Amino acid sequence: MSRPSASSEESYHVQHSPFGAFASFTCGLVDAPGGFGQSLRGPAKQNLYIGYRNGPAASWRLLPFLTPPKSQEGAFTGDTTVVQPPRGFDSLRPTDYTRTLGWASDTWRAEGGRFGFSLLSPFGEVPDPAKMKRAAARFHLAPLVTGWIEYDNRTGSSPVELVFGVGVGDDTLRPLGDTAPGLTGFAAGGRFGYATKPGRNVALKQGFDILNPKFLDHRGLHVIAGETGLVCTVPAGQRKRFPLVLGFYAAGPVSTGLTASFAYTRLFADLEDVLAHGLKEYRRYERLAAQRDRELARTKLSDDQKFLIAQATHSYLGSSELLWHKGKPLWVVNEGEYRMINTFDLTVDHLFFELQWQPWAVRDTLDLFVRRYSYRDQHGLSFTHDMGVNDFFTPPGRSSYECDNQHGCFSHMTMEQLLNWVLCACTYAAHTGDRTWLRANRKTLLACADSLRRRDHPDPAQRDGLLKQDSARVGEGAEITTYDSLDVSLGQARNNLYLSVKALGAWVLLERTFATLGLHPESAAARATADLLARTLTTKFEENTGFFPAVFEKNNCSRILPAVEGFVYPLFLGYRDATDAAGRFAPLFAQLERHLSQSLQRGICLDATSGGWKMSSTSTNTWFSKIAIAQHVVRSLFPAALNDSARAADRVHANWQRTPGCGKDAMCDQIRSDSGEACGSRYYPRGVTACLWLRE
Amino acid sequence: MSRPSASSEESYHVQHSPFGAFASFTCGLVDAPGGFGQSLRGPAKQNLYIGYRNGPAASWRLLPFLTPPKSQEGAFTGDTTVVQPPRGFDSLRPTDYTRTLGWASDTWRAEGGRFGFSLLSPFGEVPDPAKMKRAAARFHLAPLVTGWIEYDNRTGSSPVELVFGVGVGDDTLRPLGDTAPGLTGFAAGGRFGYATKPGRNVALKQGFDILNPKFLDHRGLHVIAGETGLVCTVPAGQRKRFPLVLGFYAAGPVSTGLTASFAYTRLFADLEDVLAHGLKEYRRYERLAAQRDRELARTKLSDDQKFLIAQATHSYLGSSELLWHKGKPLWVVNEGEYRMINTFDLTVDHLFFELQWQPWAVRDTLDLFVRRYSYRDQHGLSFTHDMGVNDFFTPPGRSSYECDNQHGCFSHMTMEQLLNWVLCACTYAAHTGDRTWLRANRKTLLACADSLRRRDHPDPAQRDGLLKQDSARVGEGAEITTYDSLDVSLGQARNNLYLSVKALGAWVLLERTFATLGLHPESAAARATADLLARTLTTKFEENTGFFPAVFEKNNCSRILPAVEGFVYPLFLGYRDATDAAGRFAPLFAQLERHLSQSLQRGICLDATSGGWKMSSTSTNTWFSKIAIAQHVVRSLFPAALNDSARAADRVHANWQRTPGCGKDAMCDQIRSDSGEACGSRYYPRGVTACLWLRE
Repeated sequence: MSRPSASSEESYHVQHSPFGAFASFTCGLVDAPGGFGQSLRGPAKQNLYIGYRNGPAASWRLLPFLTPPKSQEGAFTGDTTVVQPPRGFDSLRPTDYTRTLGWASDTWRAEGGRFGFSLLSPFGEVPDPAKMKRAAARFHLAPLVTGWIEYDNRTGSSPVELVFGVGVGDDTLRPLGDTAPGLTGFAAGGRFGYATKPGRNVALKQGFDILNPKFLDHRGLHVIAGETGLVCTVPAGQRKRFPLVLGFYAAGPVSTGLTASFAYTRLFADLEDVLAHGLKEYRRYERLAAQRDRELARTKLSDDQKFLIAQATHSYLGSSELLWHKGKPLWVVNEGEYRMINTFDLTVDHLFFELQWQPWAVRDTLDLFVRRYSYRDQHGLSFTHDMGVNDFFTPPGRSSYECDNQHGCFSHMTMEQLLNWVLCACTYAAHTGDRTWLRANRKTLLACADSLRRRDHPDPAQRDGLLKQDSARVGEGAEITTYDSLDVSLGQARNNLYLSVKALGAWVLLERTFATLGLHPESAAARATADLLARTLTTKFEENTGFFPAVFEKNNCSRILPAVEGFVYPLFLGYRDATDAAGRFAPLFAQLERHLSQSLQRGICLDATSGGWKMSSTSTNTWFSKIAIAQHVVRSLFPAALNDSARAADRVHANWQRTPGCGKDAMCDQIRSDSGEACGSRYYPRGVTACLWLRE
Repeated sequence: MSRPSASSEESYHVQHSPFGAFASFTCGLVDAPGGFGQSLRGPAKQNLYIGYRNGPAASWRLLPFLTPPKSQEGAFTGDTTVVQPPRGFDSLRPTDYTRTLGWASDTWRAEGGRFGFSLLSPFGEVPDPAKMKRAAARFHLAPLVTGWIEYDNRTGSSPVELVFGVGVGDDTLRPLGDTAPGLTGFAAGGRFGYATKPGRNVALKQGFDILNPKFLDHRGLHVIAGETGLVCTVPAGQRKRFPLVLGFYAAGPVSTGLTASFAYTRLFADLEDVLAHGLKEYRRYERLAAQRDRELARTKLSDDQKFLIAQATHSYLGSSELLWHKGKPLWVVNEGEYRMINTFDLTVDHLFFELQWQPWAVRDTLDLFVRRYSYRDQHGLSFTHDMGVNDFFTPPGRSSYECDNQHGCFSHMTMEQLLNWVLCACTYAAHTGDRTWLRANRKTLLACADSLRRRDHPDPAQRDGLLKQDSARVGEGAEITTYDSLDVSLGQARNNLYLSVKALGAWVLLERTFATLGLHPESAAARATADLLARTLTTKFEENTGFFPAVFEKNNCSRILPAVEGFVYPLFLGYRDATDAAGRFAPLFAQLERHLSQSLQRGICLDATSGGWKMSSTSTNTWFSKIAIAQHVVRSLFPAALNDSARAADRVHANWQRTPGCGKDAMCDQIRSDSGEACGSRYYPRGVTACLWLRE
């Protein structure tokens, strides 16, 4: 649980998202709209009316989640002199309230804690959807988040009103009670909506200005208008909390290439079914969210670290999408604002989170990469960068991202994705013990090992372990890595330090995996390749500077933190021999510790201005998800390389996300290390690498 | 066919819309985006790339249908210094091209006519969907429009390239060939798309900048980017025209309250099916559009009048929506930017158009008003203002618009809608000869007559024919008319001149209808009421001023043109006795002619500044749809009231729609009579009343 804060600078959106619905109810940024977004690349733009007033004569006090909406009244009346509503409310300032972000909750308190509003994103272990019983599936896959709004009026002498409302501007909502008498709330067609339970203390509001309605129909609404709300009354002397359910529903096929619908559409008839289910199971969802909150709160991590884990998890869920294709689950994580489907260099980072909560997602994604998104070039097998974009599955063997004849962004990532399949597959199999799957993928693993070696050199005699053969797919260009938008220090794949250490991790895992499969000669060969590669790496160390160069070409002298990223896999799996500073890679470890010690200095890989961790000494573009991995590896394997400045940077990283530079797009990944402004990868799932810290 | 124009001021959007799909491909406004819009209240915001270049070295010359799009390249690369594409094109100015709007086509020509681009909205008589065979239904209900792009390069010495493209900015499109090899084009998911036939001369383009693509994948595209296009090559010495099909598809339930899907979803599996059908039936659609174009072109109307009819028809189709509910058609016309469902005071105006092209739509709408949207107040039967809003059908007996305790906009329209049912029903039955339907609605007609009389006065002895009893539904307010947003001259229903003459029309029709039903005493009674009402009206004429007051209360002295609107129904049905200036209503006709002659003067009901027709002398808010009816009635029944200024106003009305004040939202209805700026009712279907002129 992050600390309650009354900082006037704190201002950030959070995605409150169901599991697998590619949907978010986004809010939290100060003086900004948000609300229900389906399959969007950023926050929705709905005005949210959330607050309270001390009796009908008082002013409404609302959380600052709206911008003055353009009234549509004038469009009807032809009178453009109408003052823009809503009027008559005070917008709470950040100093007027506290906000507490938990792992599965986000809670605002004001009026000395008497007013409370919370949104819950309950998440937990999700069993394999292919095998889940209907009741369990309805619970785990319901496209909803829950919440509550409350007031403690026990010392009050007049009734207090609470409002929770949504204004959709150009669109309209409809009262849900017309189709579902058990629901009090509003919906946008059948697409999204919010509801509480019907009750004497709950009234519906709809109009051009729900705070000061001028036009009321027979039931006190005006359904042609876009602004809606629930007004709940708390009598004097009482404390009341009203449950909220926020639901989504996207019917019919939503993807092309592979034509598929949301898995939940098999379980829920429509939005009304979703919302009614949410109210019925409200307590169970609440308990699940509370359990997650407790787990995070009880760790020894700092408040900044807890905040980062909580914020990252929220955005991960917002990008998650569980489809149903030809009778089977089809798992997708969308790449945040880019919405690329199962980008493989994100899959390998989500791995650790997914193995804890839904390991079948890793397995299914690996299978789809083999079945549809693998290819062979002149060196052998590899995999595409992604499976498509924006719910469009690209043709077999082709990604949406990779272009030909490029030297930077948009080139191919053949080496990187080959490593990613190996690392995900071995980690999945070792972590879950899924021998059946492993045996079924024996041939693929062997082909990967062969392909890796040939990308070192086609002639076995000339191999040194380093990947340095570009795929023919690049044409006149060169292969890149996931760090495409950084400078050449991380962007170029060939002879790349980051990728070489990642390859080392892959060989270490292959050694174990082949042994598990009883392929002992192959296991020994993998071990030999790992040792060869490690030895080669030690020759690249610059004794004079105490650094590794980022690229073993052209006198590159960038310094990079992902030099140790490749160790996260053996570390995660507890492979002590490969992660012991005094073990088989001791010479390399000693060099890497020197490299890290010197890198984690202001002006090198700690930003001179902010103190935040930088992926590369020569780029101010740094990525939080990768910082999180680097922190985990450094703290776990190279603790001596840390210094006070490096340790203090969690606060810097948290403040980047807590302020509008990143916070206006919820969790962001690509950040300018000096200013803390996001420069790409907004609304992004990859930050869940921070969950690795829970293992420290 | 409106005249080809090279006016630099001409700039207007047109909705290119299928029948019944509530969808438009909107374009034409200068320097503005447009494109595919589904169920929108205004134009979409896509950039359109439509133009040509004389060989690969020349600059592209594009129609001015785009604003510089924000490139997403920077979001991927983190590099915000990238110049915003597209670059390297010349935006054609209105003086560089001609535009010709036909009844079912919209054609641009440039380069001395060598370049041509056209969009067709083929429409015609649509048989009753409840009875249409599948093949006919696929033809009539296909959610598509067609078009073509061409270049006459017969005198050229190098190949010319043509481009037709769409940029969706924040979203992405996908190449259609992946799922449908017979289609060359792009689609947004399964929702909309465009295609031509595959061919050697047609290439696909997709990227951040389709005119200058930097990043090309294995097939020369970049599917993560939002800008797409077809580039067609016309070799030197040839003239080539490339067919285009623009399609929509909205799967699953789209409405609530009455849960229904688009009728076409029963006939087409998906968007690909729609587009392939469009290419297959291309010639037939083209012939249908050409037939409509010819019909309008051959009339004796002026070019301005033809333009108004063409523009109005396009926007009517854009608001049309044919749903399928429980095995039956469910007809909807959406109210333009307000999207209210089957607003009854629009239905009564669409009547004349719909009786020509799809009379079943009138019948089905009347039936649904009886079945679900009728109610009884203290005086008897009436009908709601509308059936809901934005695909939400309101509960039985309730509209989305009407509120209680109001004196102006948003009050109830009980008298008006009662008259509208009578007028629509009698006109439908008389025009179509549908006796079965008429007999089935005998009781409703009798109840309407009874309700009308009681709204005059509950005591028969005190009746004078005028409607003056407000419904109890208004509460502390007062009933209004369809002219809600004008001043009291037309807004107040009680003792209203417009509504009284409309009631006269209703009684004239009831007299005939009851006779047809063999209800002779009722027919005689209707005749007597008509005569009573006509006599009463003559007593309201101000001999001293030569005018009728607009409201027979409170010394109102507004002068209104809708004084004669009620005569359009007997005029349409050819009821000579009621429309003969020397006939049974001769004294009233003489007074109305004086009223009109004096009204059609600058500063009264011709705007002092613009010369346009004004509904009321005391309001600058005037409505084109109602001007068109008034013009038709005046020209047909009161020709002596016309003068040169009044006759010349067609040019004024056309210029309003042809320039951005209205044109930025396609056909607009509520217009400031001085400035020609729309002040409401944008993107609006009601202007099809202008089709009455085709009868003159």
